[in-house]
Amino acid sequence: MASTKERIVETTAELFRRYGYTGTGMKQVVANANAPFGSLYHFFPGGKEQLGDEVIRTSGRMYQEIVEAVWDAAPDVTTGVRDVFAGAAEVLRQSDYADACPIATVALEVASTSEPLRVATAEVFDSWIAVATERLVAAGIRKKTARHLAFAILSLLEGAFVFSRAMRTTESLDAAGTAAVALVRASL
Amino acid sequence: MASTKERIVETTAELFRRYGYTGTGMKQVVANANAPFGSLYHFFPGGKEQLGDEVIRTSGRMYQEIVEAVWDAAPDVTTGVRDVFAGAAEVLRQSDYADACPIATVALEVASTSEPLRVATAEVFDSWIAVATERLVAAGIRKKTARHLAFAILSLLEGAFVFSRAMRTTESLDAAGTAAVALVRASL
Repeated sequence: MASTKERIVETTAELFRRYGYTGTGMKQVVANANAPFGSLYHFFPGGKEQLGDEVIRTSGRMYQEIVEAVWDAAPDVTTGVRDVFAGAAEVLRQSDYADACPIATVALEVASTSEPLRVATAEVFDSWIAVATERLVAAGIRKKTARHLAFAILSLLEGAFVFSRAMRTTESLDAAGTAAVALVRASL
Repeated sequence: MASTKERIVETTAELFRRYGYTGTGMKQVVANANAPFGSLYHFFPGGKEQLGDEVIRTSGRMYQEIVEAVWDAAPDVTTGVRDVFAGAAEVLRQSDYADACPIATVALEVASTSEPLRVATAEVFDSWIAVATERLVAAGIRKKTARHLAFAILSLLEGAFVFSRAMRTTESLDAAGTAAVALVRASL
């Protein structure tokens, strides 16, 4: 069973995905996590910003693990990339276009308003780019090309998420996935 | 000289780019627009949501015009696409990584929280995709491919904006721009 702290982090992560950082209230967090209000400041004496930092890092790590698991299950790199986009599209459809990137909304909200949280999102993105670059290098693509390609693939995914959530269709993810696969093929 | 209503819309657009929809307060709007509080509800009796709707549509139209002007100034479609990404990178550097897509933050914030505002962002995105598709068709790409390519190019741009604002570097835009040009070339 999840600890109170874990419940607070998980609940906040879900609220961030739907309402963003600014739109998530601390009262809403304790109510949804079924936690006493005092426990929030016990675990996160720095308040909302400290909780936000932990949620960004935890969500970022979990999302990376999910994407890596999908990629690992594929027989080759192009299939892996295709499956990541297809899986993301499926999750969006199943969640009524709510669950896309767990930290993109927060990243855009805090970029010009909270330097500690901006740094947290930047470090998560750095980690994603580094892992994707390594995987592309392992598939035989040279380092510099692989890093550019990692930025392009993840930009396609993040951008397609924006269109998919707004337009309530996975057309953008299908198009972005096809483009990502074409870019990988052209680099192999 | 801008009318009071125009000043309110322009000021709100700037606040949305930096603080998002939820993070922008009505008091902040009237103070920054140097407008009497009553004027806000005079022009926007529907309150923040009505103002948000107008700002989304106005910002979306203006951004489309800027991008089309850059595209028009280029001698061919690949140069046009390259210049759009290069121009976006320059604006980000000049604005200390604040000014990227004028409606992406709001689009992600409202996708699951305000149906009228979600529809406003979807209609702006629909228009962008339609215009980009037409331009790619005019360059000789067949309709269905052009629409997929439009989604891919705009996803690259939107996604690269997320990374650029968070990481405070235009590396993502450089990589996304190169990828967009490669995708266009491959379709010609």
